[in-house]
Amino acid sequence: MTKIFAYSIRKDEEPYLKEWAAAHPEVTVDYTADLLTPETAKQAAGADGVVVYQQLDYTPETLRALADEGITKMSLRNVGVDNIDMATAKELGFEITNVPVYSPNAIAEHAAIQTARILRQTKVLDRKIESGDLRWAPTIGREVRDQTIGVIGTGHIGQVYMQIMEGFGAKVIAYDVFHDPKLEEAGYYVDSLDDIYQQADVISLHVPALKNTIKMINDESIAKMKDDAVLVNVSRGALVDTDAVVRALDSGKLFGFVMDTYENEVGIFNADWRGKEFPDARLKDLIDRPNVLVTPHTAFYTTHAVRNMVVKAFDNNLALVNGETPDTPVKVG
Amino acid sequence: MTKIFAYSIRKDEEPYLKEWAAAHPEVTVDYTADLLTPETAKQAAGADGVVVYQQLDYTPETLRALADEGITKMSLRNVGVDNIDMATAKELGFEITNVPVYSPNAIAEHAAIQTARILRQTKVLDRKIESGDLRWAPTIGREVRDQTIGVIGTGHIGQVYMQIMEGFGAKVIAYDVFHDPKLEEAGYYVDSLDDIYQQADVISLHVPALKNTIKMINDESIAKMKDDAVLVNVSRGALVDTDAVVRALDSGKLFGFVMDTYENEVGIFNADWRGKEFPDARLKDLIDRPNVLVTPHTAFYTTHAVRNMVVKAFDNNLALVNGETPDTPVKVG
Ligand SMILES: NC(=O)c1ccc[n+]([C@@H]2O[C@H](COP(=O)([O-])OP(=O)(O)OC[C@H]3O[C@@H](n4cnc5c(N)ncnc54)[C@H](O)[C@@H]3O)[C@@H](O)[C@H]2O)c1
Ligand SMILES: NC(=O)c1ccc[n+]([C@@H]2O[C@H](COP(=O)([O-])OP(=O)(O)OC[C@H]3O[C@@H](n4cnc5c(N)ncnc54)[C@H](O)[C@@H]3O)[C@@H](O)[C@H]2O)c1
Repeated sequence: MTKIFAYSIRKDEEPYLKEWAAAHPEVTVDYTADLLTPETAKQAAGADGVVVYQQLDYTPETLRALADEGITKMSLRNVGVDNIDMATAKELGFEITNVPVYSPNAIAEHAAIQTARILRQTKVLDRKIESGDLRWAPTIGREVRDQTIGVIGTGHIGQVYMQIMEGFGAKVIAYDVFHDPKLEEAGYYVDSLDDIYQQADVISLHVPALKNTIKMINDESIAKMKDDAVLVNVSRGALVDTDAVVRALDSGKLFGFVMDTYENEVGIFNADWRGKEFPDARLKDLIDRPNVLVTPHTAFYTTHAVRNMVVKAFDNNLALVNGETPDTPVKVG
Repeated sequence: MTKIFAYSIRKDEEPYLKEWAAAHPEVTVDYTADLLTPETAKQAAGADGVVVYQQLDYTPETLRALADEGITKMSLRNVGVDNIDMATAKELGFEITNVPVYSPNAIAEHAAIQTARILRQTKVLDRKIESGDLRWAPTIGREVRDQTIGVIGTGHIGQVYMQIMEGFGAKVIAYDVFHDPKLEEAGYYVDSLDDIYQQADVISLHVPALKNTIKMINDESIAKMKDDAVLVNVSRGALVDTDAVVRALDSGKLFGFVMDTYENEVGIFNADWRGKEFPDARLKDLIDRPNVLVTPHTAFYTTHAVRNMVVKAFDNNLALVNGETPDTPVKVG
């Protein structure tokens, strides 16, 4: 009987793992909360493939320990493969898959909710309420429907964000180097980034970090924006010159800032700093500001996304084990 | 020259008052931050009409003081007329207008944003982040698109809420004693409240408080709901048996609760309790819960709504002064 073993399964992943196992009675599924290391590799003994997800490196030793158990079919539940020693993987004949898209809606919904919260001044109001001040004035909201939403990048995530904003009744304009024919026909595209900066009340970034997008939001582009613009970055920290944004928040040029990704997030996000010295004073200041909403790269983190990560990784692994072509193979080497 | 005098103008109303005045150069507009009282009535001397908005009673003395200045044309910037002594108003020949609808979107957007925040567990996550805990697990979100949204009451506000939720990609079902033909044709209506309770993941109330809607959310109706349902009340506190909701939050039956209106809100909301004893322990407990979002009847409070309140009240008052029929007259007496 086919056997698949899964590492570092979190509590919130278990239901989906069990759902997949129930739908595949021909496969024995076993799992652990432990990360995959040279020591834990033997827990997978007897398995035909492994399903994994960790920040920890997949070192030559780790890969060799797995191969020693006869296991070379490895399916990641996430997208990133930077932490895999590819040379060793190739040498040992590994076949690897990942899950490149889990849920564009998870990220787009987060961006939309946080955008609306900034416009509505919910952080100011919530703090007032918690302190016992139940007066509403002067904490007045701006309605989403009254805004022009400028979307930079109309890929998987940008398009969903556009739909949500239109549901609110907002006017949506977009910029992308590639024009989606459907959106083109519907007349969303403006000609230049400057058009976005000049016309939009909300500017939301949905592009990858590339040479010409890194620090695209800087003193110069902010100066082109409308007064009281809202900036939303749930894409990549590198897109934004954070110091320039802080200056624009200080001057009042920007009405608010949504930040799910941060230039210096590696080693800071997804860690517990309580009782320790907080490692980044600028970040701490942003977290405390009433018109900034910081989240530590959690936009993706929904039940829908987690289910997809688990189910797609198991589907991929079963395909590998059965000698079929998996949906999303990773180039090894 | 026609003159209109406005009372209790807040800072956030000034821009719209000035906008209206600029558009009506034939009218002299003057205003004060003071409430209308027997003492302040003389500030309006020489005016043809007054524009007002206050919780404070319009007593016989107040109305008489206005009439003594020759002013009997009074336009409210809000909807409620309970605090006007109608017998005296009638006796003195007052003509009165109000603004019954300022912005359904203000309330619907607020309901939608708060719904999404509950699903996304933003209060839990924000508190973690503020405390220095930047780990995302186990604070996982539910995507709006995965929910069945049950809307009770498909009037002005309910319909906008439905559109927003559909923008997120959610499934929307609705119940109303009156079936809007457009929504009927599109197939939104279920046959009974029980259908809503049994099928919906989110239940949002958009009905007035009437004999058969008061305490419609109680132990019995909650028992019919799905586990992990979210309850949203931005309509009237009286619709909900708050103790029953607290029990359902304690038991875990309800995933969360959005509350912009409260059974006992009169005298508590829109006041500053800092440094005083908080007047309602149950309310304080709700405010502090991680899966409850309390706002003090602020859903209406947007720039769009405030502009409408000001502009419509002035339009109404000018119509009264010119002997024309105002848009929204109030029955006096
Ligand atoms: N916060 C999170 O949890 C999270 C999760 C997943 C992805 N992301 C990020 O979201 C972003 C968008 O992801 P996606 O899945 O929508 O990507 P996608 O590839 O589907 O879309 C990206 C779009 O950007 C456009 N683009 C590329 N270079 C451009 C440029 N210079 N100017 C304008 N447009 C340009 C592309 O043509 C494409 O349409 C990525 O940066 C990704 O890393 C964030
Ligand atoms: N939180 C706020 O700031 C705020 C501001 C304005 C209004 N509101 C409240 O929002 C609610 C809805 O306002 P609206 O402008 O949409 O009203 P509306 O009159 O346009 O719609 C109300 C709907 O409820 C329906 N209805 C009446 N009795 C019903 C019953 N027993 N069962 C099912 N449906 C029933 C009516 O047919 C109507 O379609 C009201 O209670 C209003 O007081 C709250």
